Amino acid sequence: MRETTVIRLKEDIRLENTTLLVGLPGVGHVGKLVVDHLIEKLDAEKVFEIYSPHFPPQVMVNEESTVKLVNNEIYVCKANGNDIVLLAGDHQSTSTEGHYELGTIYIDIAEELGVKRIFTLGGFPTGQLTHTDEVMGASNDLEMVTELKEYEVTFKPNEPGGGIVGASGLLLGLSMFKNIKAACLMGLTSGYLVDPKSAQALLALLSKILGIEVDVSELEERAKEMEKIVANLVEAKQQEQQQQQPEMLRDTATDEDLRYIG
Amino acid sequence: MRETTVIRLKEDIRLENTTLLVGLPGVGHVGKLVVDHLIEKLDAEKVFEIYSPHFPPQVMVNEESTVKLVNNEIYVCKANGNDIVLLAGDHQSTSTEGHYELGTIYIDIAEELGVKRIFTLGGFPTGQLTHTDEVMGASNDLEMVTELKEYEVTFKPNEPGGGIVGASGLLLGLSMFKNIKAACLMGLTSGYLVDPKSAQALLALLSKILGIEVDVSELEERAKEMEKIVANLVEAKQQEQQQQQPEMLRDTATDEDLRYIG
Amino acid sequence: MRETTVIRLKEDIRLENTTLLVGLPGVGHVGKLVVDHLIEKLDAEKVFEIYSPHFPPQVMVNEESTVKLVNNEIYVCKANGNDIVLLAGDHQSTSTEGHYELGTIYIDIAEELGVKRIFTLGGFPTGQLTHTDEVMGASNDLEMVTELKEYEVTFKPNEPGGGIVGASGLLLGLSMFKNIKAACLMGLTSGYLVDPKSAQALLALLSKILGIEVDVSELEERAKEMEKIVANLVEAKQQEQQQQQPEMLRDTATDEDLRYIG
Amino acid sequence: MRETTVIRLKEDIRLENTTLLVGLPGVGHVGKLVVDHLIEKLDAEKVFEIYSPHFPPQVMVNEESTVKLVNNEIYVCKANGNDIVLLAGDHQSTSTEGHYELGTIYIDIAEELGVKRIFTLGGFPTGQLTHTDEVMGASNDLEMVTELKEYEVTFKPNEPGGGIVGASGLLLGLSMFKNIKAACLMGLTSGYLVDPKSAQALLALLSKILGIEVDVSELEERAKEMEKIVANLVEAKQQEQQQQQPEMLRDTATDEDLRYIG
Repeated sequence: MRETTVIRLKEDIRLENTTLLVGLPGVGHVGKLVVDHLIEKLDAEKVFEIYSPHFPPQVMVNEESTVKLVNNEIYVCKANGNDIVLLAGDHQSTSTEGHYELGTIYIDIAEELGVKRIFTLGGFPTGQLTHTDEVMGASNDLEMVTELKEYEVTFKPNEPGGGIVGASGLLLGLSMFKNIKAACLMGLTSGYLVDPKSAQALLALLSKILGIEVDVSELEERAKEMEKIVANLVEAKQQEQQQQQPEMLRDTATDEDLRYIG
Repeated sequence: MRETTVIRLKEDIRLENTTLLVGLPGVGHVGKLVVDHLIEKLDAEKVFEIYSPHFPPQVMVNEESTVKLVNNEIYVCKANGNDIVLLAGDHQSTSTEGHYELGTIYIDIAEELGVKRIFTLGGFPTGQLTHTDEVMGASNDLEMVTELKEYEVTFKPNEPGGGIVGASGLLLGLSMFKNIKAACLMGLTSGYLVDPKSAQALLALLSKILGIEVDVSELEERAKEMEKIVANLVEAKQQEQQQQQPEMLRDTATDEDLRYIG
Repeated sequence: MRETTVIRLKEDIRLENTTLLVGLPGVGHVGKLVVDHLIEKLDAEKVFEIYSPHFPPQVMVNEESTVKLVNNEIYVCKANGNDIVLLAGDHQSTSTEGHYELGTIYIDIAEELGVKRIFTLGGFPTGQLTHTDEVMGASNDLEMVTELKEYEVTFKPNEPGGGIVGASGLLLGLSMFKNIKAACLMGLTSGYLVDPKSAQALLALLSKILGIEVDVSELEERAKEMEKIVANLVEAKQQEQQQQQPEMLRDTATDEDLRYIG
Repeated sequence: MRETTVIRLKEDIRLENTTLLVGLPGVGHVGKLVVDHLIEKLDAEKVFEIYSPHFPPQVMVNEESTVKLVNNEIYVCKANGNDIVLLAGDHQSTSTEGHYELGTIYIDIAEELGVKRIFTLGGFPTGQLTHTDEVMGASNDLEMVTELKEYEVTFKPNEPGGGIVGASGLLLGLSMFKNIKAACLMGLTSGYLVDPKSAQALLALLSKILGIEVDVSELEERAKEMEKIVANLVEAKQQEQQQQQPEMLRDTATDEDLRYIG
């Protein structure tokens, strides 16, 4: 395993009118939560495993205490008459050069599988713990921007200001060389915590776009647990402030602006 | 895109008595502001796009919410009878080795385009918010030092003391192997903020050297906006000091020495 | 030495029913202490030296003030009728890619030597200075989990939660591609200090599994010295807290929760 | 310049009974001060220039405001009937892998030039500002340890405890593969400042070993300047302590233990 290794689990993969959904770990794990959820609920079939020296030298431990070498995986499924390809994984590349190598591999596979449209899914950090269902977008194709605006995706000129970094951004860039249109959909999220509520909002949007229905009860459950954790954090923060204020006279942070958690 | 890729947009590029101007992101973005401004005002034509796994895995988002994979670009234009080549870009290399690879590519292209003289443009950090129109220089050629002194470029022995790091420095070094004379021109700037005022000073100098005239009203406008921001920072800093002084007895910082902003 | 270099010290190595023990530097140096101890006590023979540009550019200085270039080494010995291969070393790879390269080399050597079973040995950080003889496990093979439970190795679902990082984890993952079963055995340790006491516990377990007897008096001695150091740290910490409490009102740390030492 | 490039300035280099002295930047710049001084005083001739993408992408600016691409250089001279080869430079490799590549190149050149003995020169950080003429050693050859003890070089078992990192250490390790004996000589130095006084002590030792005489007046001058700077630092530190003590009750630092300067 000195080189990136693509293991093909199924020879004959026939797809039509195909959409690729990319959900790798990132801000709030929003994209990963959505794609992992879809793989389970749509009963998707694993067709590729990708191992690489650009992933951390690490195994994950599962429920049975057995291990799995960190990798990325590609799944396929059919939903509402359309073929969906899903890219999921434990990690993104640890190096800049590895990002380009893996991204090129993924776009080559997408092209081979006849992918016509890519959605890379992620989170957009707001620095605020208050939730909103808003999803922000950017695309490598102006028509796609227009189409997505009809689904109430927010587009702002030059935003995100720092560009889109990592696989979600890079795949938008690399797919241009293959004339595949692609958009990044980012659920708004605090940026401090894993955010199943933002994932739920992103999944709802995606379901509309793809015309599919997906059971979201598990994400809802996780979102409720997370809300309790956030409520506790907010309370703890407020108590800390009340104790510090008489001594410190620092600028007060409200429960909407908890920048220093996490 | 596993390797650095040079996309040539125009086959037949005929240039004479050519000067290369390099303006990549760096201290105060002074060099980038100057070259981006010249590309627009001189209506330069893009002739090369350079993509590389040594750039961050990132897309930039433009006004229409469409994206562009980070790259470097080479433009050409004619001004006052002379050919000018301009190297601009979103980022410099993220790795040491990438700097050498990209630098070698740029010098090879410069040689092929018949470049006789290179100016790499940058900023020199002073740590002070007071503006000066001073431009500091260093060159790979002693004659060029003499010539530039006539344009009131400042040259100091062994300065900058830490050498010149990044593309602005490296291209001076690499061009020696091709016998192309090159100088680095650094506008003095605080080092904390994007500095259109320093860019204006550098552009004025460059216009004299190249014998060209360039409309600088946009840079002036941006400089005025920036001045307001700086004025606010200075005021905020002074207020903070007045509040802290009775308690802390720290060494006082004046509005001329705001080392800890940014 | 531009490439990883494997120096074979013995041509004809005949082994049977072989177990590989891996003890490289890591958390509490638990794994390294065990394997270095076994190499000495079982009088193991060095059969491979591995040098690599992925190790730090460094020599170690020994008792005679002579030096040794940092490397990894493979030893063999026979104990209780079984062949044991031991992988020891001064350092792990400094880069992600190097980890994969070296790991692949080690698994290739293991396969060639007829290794049937691998134990990678390490420490699991608890954040607590109180000692326990507990050893935690994870494996690439479900049968091995069942077998090791009989030796009172602790297995917890999805634990360690962050996976197992470094050679101890990676070798579990890479050996799957060669169908070699492997387990990681982690002695519980504070995570702040070199821990010969945890090494002793891990060695006792390993002796039972391998059916061998090993003199542990030296490890015991080192453990006693370490206990004195820990006792002093705890005392110093308590005194510091007593001095700070009236002023600070910080949350109190007990002698069982010394998270900020080290 | 995508690869490390060795430029040979002289074809026919005939040397006998040759010693290589290595003085690259490092702790207190002790080794670099010694070798740069010897190159000047012994009027050594430059015979190799080494450029590499493993050096920083940087030019140094000299007295005339012209620049030089950072590199390493090899000089030769004759002193007291013996040939001396000197390795000097602006920087060490920025990457681990680059250290091994450059180190291998240097040892290959040493072998070709008939080098029989290598001294890598450096500083050993004590954390104390009080000066001592002590020089510490380590070698890849036990006989060399014995020989150097006669020159009052200090050898301590297993010291430096962390080994010797960087070119000074690595060249000791790599030269073993070519059967060239080598020692590292480390002048004791605070570790906070460039230390011409430690360089003077190291040069005095080296002059005895090589049986040469070198004018050290310039190093003495620089040492005196440095002493003034140190004295000012000590005084400033003491004043700061006197002001802080009534408020802070921190542990007092003496002028012999100025760990936080630099």
